[in-house]
Amino acid sequence: MSILDTIIHKRDGKQNSRTELEQLVSGAVRGDVPHYQVSAWLMAAFLNGLTPEETGVLTDVMIRSGRSLDLSGLPGPLIDKHSTGGVGDKVSLILAPMVAACGVQVPMMSGRGLGHTGGTLDKLESIAGYSTELDEDRFRQIIQDCGFAMTGQSSDVVPADRLLYALRDVTGTVESIPLITASILSKKFAEGAEALVFDVKCGAGAFMKTFEQAQALAESLRESCRALGRPVVTCITRMESPLGYAIGNAFEVEESVTCLRGDGPADLMDVTIRLGAWMLVAGGVASTVEEGVSRCVQAIENGDALDRFVRNVNAQGGNGQRALEPVDRAPVREVLKADRDGYVQGLNAYAFGRAAGALGAGRMQAEDSVLPDVGIILARKPGDSVHSGETVAELYARDPARVADAMAWLADAVQIDDEDAAGDLPMILEEVAQLKD
Amino acid sequence: MSILDTIIHKRDGKQNSRTELEQLVSGAVRGDVPHYQVSAWLMAAFLNGLTPEETGVLTDVMIRSGRSLDLSGLPGPLIDKHSTGGVGDKVSLILAPMVAACGVQVPMMSGRGLGHTGGTLDKLESIAGYSTELDEDRFRQIIQDCGFAMTGQSSDVVPADRLLYALRDVTGTVESIPLITASILSKKFAEGAEALVFDVKCGAGAFMKTFEQAQALAESLRESCRALGRPVVTCITRMESPLGYAIGNAFEVEESVTCLRGDGPADLMDVTIRLGAWMLVAGGVASTVEEGVSRCVQAIENGDALDRFVRNVNAQGGNGQRALEPVDRAPVREVLKADRDGYVQGLNAYAFGRAAGALGAGRMQAEDSVLPDVGIILARKPGDSVHSGETVAELYARDPARVADAMAWLADAVQIDDEDAAGDLPMILEEVAQLKD
Repeated sequence: MSILDTIIHKRDGKQNSRTELEQLVSGAVRGDVPHYQVSAWLMAAFLNGLTPEETGVLTDVMIRSGRSLDLSGLPGPLIDKHSTGGVGDKVSLILAPMVAACGVQVPMMSGRGLGHTGGTLDKLESIAGYSTELDEDRFRQIIQDCGFAMTGQSSDVVPADRLLYALRDVTGTVESIPLITASILSKKFAEGAEALVFDVKCGAGAFMKTFEQAQALAESLRESCRALGRPVVTCITRMESPLGYAIGNAFEVEESVTCLRGDGPADLMDVTIRLGAWMLVAGGVASTVEEGVSRCVQAIENGDALDRFVRNVNAQGGNGQRALEPVDRAPVREVLKADRDGYVQGLNAYAFGRAAGALGAGRMQAEDSVLPDVGIILARKPGDSVHSGETVAELYARDPARVADAMAWLADAVQIDDEDAAGDLPMILEEVAQLKD
Repeated sequence: MSILDTIIHKRDGKQNSRTELEQLVSGAVRGDVPHYQVSAWLMAAFLNGLTPEETGVLTDVMIRSGRSLDLSGLPGPLIDKHSTGGVGDKVSLILAPMVAACGVQVPMMSGRGLGHTGGTLDKLESIAGYSTELDEDRFRQIIQDCGFAMTGQSSDVVPADRLLYALRDVTGTVESIPLITASILSKKFAEGAEALVFDVKCGAGAFMKTFEQAQALAESLRESCRALGRPVVTCITRMESPLGYAIGNAFEVEESVTCLRGDGPADLMDVTIRLGAWMLVAGGVASTVEEGVSRCVQAIENGDALDRFVRNVNAQGGNGQRALEPVDRAPVREVLKADRDGYVQGLNAYAFGRAAGALGAGRMQAEDSVLPDVGIILARKPGDSVHSGETVAELYARDPARVADAMAWLADAVQIDDEDAAGDLPMILEEVAQLKD
């Protein structure tokens, strides 16, 4: 069986066998299969698709391409959440300490921001001293001590994903649901998670713009988890407007602390608590999602979640008490004003994400660096009334030139109507739990 | 405009612009566009196709990737023929001197055999001393002196085709009609041909197994020539059984001489004369194909074609008179016998081609070498009656072990029936001339 046959089978719409995918992936990682053959296969897979079985097998051989973390022996269930990426999405920072306080361990391996979306690692690193480069022993130790730990992906975990992702990025094969599925699942399972809860974002600020696209990804994730014999919950959540009020690394940590103190905005808390509740169910800590919700709410109200956050910041090199204090804001301030009276109906999350990126909060290329103290604070959310000339958002930058770029992104980003039709839209659009076969 | 956009446009089924194809091809030849991007584009082009306009533009930018031969100033029209490859296909060796004798110049740049098909260069090189490596001056001089010259592809003519073909070969993107079209046309027009006559083989021994596939390729060749503003004739010819009686390099030269002497087998001469006649029409030397046929027949009958052949062999380093003599046959002889009485109805050309290859007449990989004096001589053709035990074909080899391999290929290659339904099947299945816009 040659790699050429593997490519031709996929080109002709046939199913690749485990042996074929094994040879392709492990050969690519070893350097025996040249990149031009991998990229021809990627394009064939992009255009002809992979079945759920193939996606499951691809995930499995990707996991086996490297070292998996061994987190066995830790006392509680190991459950992780993965978000497909949104704007103002600081859910992980609130959710991890919250579910840890309820007895679920979270081995969270996160990424950096790219394009219009922020990244959990960038947000955490705005905390002075906070390290997201943990070796396996330290990662394990912090999970044991705090119930959760936050780290970046280590280079020897799923090297196949690094290689395939780099090739997809330059060959126009990124937006493939099976390839996205295998990339996400291989990383999450290699990091030691026993079950996963997915936050598939849907809307203007998400990669999946339509509900149908989001459903397709959610279904692919579930079907591949079924093929792998792993429990999974998929939630599709609204990502039309930014989550919460804060966009920008330190600003989002600050808002997370507000949430952990029990004063979080409704949209952000709805999503966070619902996802957390499913993690408790997936981990066997709650028997129903309603029970999960009430336990999560309780962990916020009684201060246990905040306490876990402080302990984690201390454990990962920061100062937990100082992390609770208000953050500095960069000195150049600009105000985005309403141009009419009415009700805010939309704050285009993509435009706000790009605007925050233009201020320096995000990156367009992986090698760019980000600033902690720049970003956007919303003054209004969808459903709020506003008068012409009142503030909709404040922008903070270090460099005035960047403000102009950001304001250009926001020129048409705010929709104000006479009537309010956006105030009561649900944040959770679909939930599907697939916990037992 | 980035290469990534070029790939994504083709991935999404859009048409690539001239600028995009120019950047892709010239970038690839310069080494600025990495192979993994070229191969992703090739797979997208394979699966989503190219329009005739795109194929024409691709051909043009491939031609411009290297140096074109300048054959201007030669006295007559420059017309070439291209065959998609068959078994026993020695048409070029007869046709080139024949049409040269009629006043059409043939700048023939040929390839080597691969797989089950032979190559004109391999056949010519079975003539002692014959050189197929001509520089441009020598190529031009021999055309001027003999009316035709036979050479291999020089490395600076269409380097893009060499690169793309090498990548297609290892990425499962060979069998794409637009990519095949651009590959053929770019080489043929870069060698200096003003118009082309195509022999699109169809049947068991051809790359195009069905008439529909052959029609699709013929149509693609015509449409791309129209986009390029070049005259073209496409002929679809039968390739179910080997052409003529001889398969093997020196054996085919010997049979070509027989044909040039006027004693050629009907199937081979039908194809050769008809293609030659169209070359005379395309070159403006005959006004109708019927007139072309009678001039070609005349050039054989009056010995002018044979004379041109002798002059060409002398000019290219061989001994023209000696090339007319019977050739040596390798010492190990085996006979394939009829297993029943009846009429030969089929001699599977693919099987005979692989059998000749197994004897050493062909190669499975480009770096293999070939033997001149091995091959197969048919004793019967479709339509001939045969008795059980009589000879259908003789095999000649240097090594007895190879005879067994060849005989294995021929186990089911001969079809003998009670009735004759194969004797009168036409060799020319379709002819379409597109000489003016």
